[in-house]
Amino acid sequence: MSTIPSEPRVTAAVLVIGDEILSGRTKDQNVGWIADELTAAGIDLREVRIVPDEAPAIVAAINALRAAYTHVLTTGGIGPTHDDITADCMAAAFGVGIDVDPRAVAVMQPYYDARGVPLTEARLRMARIPDGARLILNSISAAPGFMIGNVVVMAGVPAVMRVMLTDAKQYLARSAPIQSRSVRVPHPEGEIAELLRAHQAARPAVAMGSYPQRDGDRLWTEIVLRCADAGALDSAAADLEAKLRERGLI
Amino acid sequence: MSTIPSEPRVTAAVLVIGDEILSGRTKDQNVGWIADELTAAGIDLREVRIVPDEAPAIVAAINALRAAYTHVLTTGGIGPTHDDITADCMAAAFGVGIDVDPRAVAVMQPYYDARGVPLTEARLRMARIPDGARLILNSISAAPGFMIGNVVVMAGVPAVMRVMLTDAKQYLARSAPIQSRSVRVPHPEGEIAELLRAHQAARPAVAMGSYPQRDGDRLWTEIVLRCADAGALDSAAADLEAKLRERGLI
Repeated sequence: MSTIPSEPRVTAAVLVIGDEILSGRTKDQNVGWIADELTAAGIDLREVRIVPDEAPAIVAAINALRAAYTHVLTTGGIGPTHDDITADCMAAAFGVGIDVDPRAVAVMQPYYDARGVPLTEARLRMARIPDGARLILNSISAAPGFMIGNVVVMAGVPAVMRVMLTDAKQYLARSAPIQSRSVRVPHPEGEIAELLRAHQAARPAVAMGSYPQRDGDRLWTEIVLRCADAGALDSAAADLEAKLRERGLI
Repeated sequence: MSTIPSEPRVTAAVLVIGDEILSGRTKDQNVGWIADELTAAGIDLREVRIVPDEAPAIVAAINALRAAYTHVLTTGGIGPTHDDITADCMAAAFGVGIDVDPRAVAVMQPYYDARGVPLTEARLRMARIPDGARLILNSISAAPGFMIGNVVVMAGVPAVMRVMLTDAKQYLARSAPIQSRSVRVPHPEGEIAELLRAHQAARPAVAMGSYPQRDGDRLWTEIVLRCADAGALDSAAADLEAKLRERGLI
């Protein structure tokens, strides 16, 4: 019997776009950071996909994900070069037009003027925004991200992605943040698995993960309980600790 | 006109299974390593997905990916606890039975005996292998991974995943490894984008990525050319460097 209110959760998926991640040449630094930010904001990250710089793969992924989750956040493919095709793919996925957007030019022009750098045709490609999108500000290098429907399109460069997500968060729906409690058990998983299974069955509303850990030769287990309802979480954690203590396991 | 033989490429997808990655609590350390290994082996990693510890999401992802790529490699969810459901999901995805496998017990029993640790019912869960699967050896902690059809199922703990992938590689198809050449251009992307676009259009068989880089205040661009055919790659790289030199850009 759950004590959790059945308030619907706000969900999200992340779509990482980039050949360089799939080839291994670049190691993704964005997913973990975005996961932390979304969790803190009460948005449940439910899926991540990484796809290459190819329009059919990008369009198919964006259409699958935007239908399945409250929000989709993409990283990568919004620079000035030939392999930056994310904005065009978003327009294709949403079936809207795309062109150089005067609002984007208005934020980019002063940045380039101040540096004495010409706003070349190539750079103007970064001002191409699908029709109906809202701009996401880039306080580092001006060229904006955007949000169309429930999809936020951000840069792949980690520092730029971070300022974009910070701006975009004001437009995202949220639910109550998931709280978590961690219980350290100085025994390997194989010795507490039955107890954990019974506990999870008795407390289905409080998700419980079990993570094997090792300090030198010593195996131990980190149990993580997660729930949006702090009362239910505390109660489940106290119950688990009581069961572990009863058997002399903590 | 391409000089590349049209030999079909061996492709792969990675499926990361784990709530702890999506919540941000654990940062994935496996995808980048697997990407490097596959690239070196001539296997093109074409997609990565991260899904939670939930059977419908795991089964749907595995069935989508195994139909689309030569190989699928999964990480996570094969331990002894209630949240380790990968093996059962694989059996469900392939429509086969699953039970404690004597071959798996045979590799696990001596490991536990040598440590004076009982092979509990919980630990025997790690010997549950779908019918028709081949075992993948785990030289660190004995409990095996497995390969069923074109899917390799590995642990999520990075050290264990690595020994499993090393063993599994003997069962994977390969194609000629993709070679790459990197060209460093001391100018920002926006100043070379048109040249790059024309070059890519003239050399469609040699994939070219452009990656903005920054050293302090200095922006530069890393161009990465990729192709399985070393001759075509060298020719495209030489051509690109000649064009850049002609305009005084390198």
